[in-house]
Amino acid sequence: MVMQVFNVKGMSCGHCVRAIETAIKAVDENADIDVELKLGKVKVQSELPPNEIINAINAEGYEAVLAS
Amino acid sequence: MVMQVFNVKGMSCGHCVRAIETAIKAVDENADIDVELKLGKVKVQSELPPNEIINAINAEGYEAVLAS
Repeated sequence: MVMQVFNVKGMSCGHCVRAIETAIKAVDENADIDVELKLGKVKVQSELPPNEIINAINAEGYEAVLAS
Repeated sequence: MVMQVFNVKGMSCGHCVRAIETAIKAVDENADIDVELKLGKVKVQSELPPNEIINAINAEGYEAVLAS
């Protein structure tokens, strides 16, 4: 699978981590997800297009962009 | 019912607000709860002893004390 890294604004606690994990699993149940809360980064191993992952994260109230 | 005000450390987002509301409702389903996230205050109308409310909040990972 492809490693994709997103910068995500608005994550503040463990609830946020779980909300983002759940949102990504809902669009790709096989995704491997690593949320780095303090760094504001979400690393995802998935074949989905980045925009689908971004949309899933943002639907939870966060602001995600693909890290350059 | 009696108005009780608690200072609560560790609340950072809407998930925290809902976690605290749910935890208090679990010990007093009739409680009227007002969480002031930015102020770090939780106002509860309940007949429960304050310590029971504090224990419910702290079990979610926060630090509550009765406001003086």
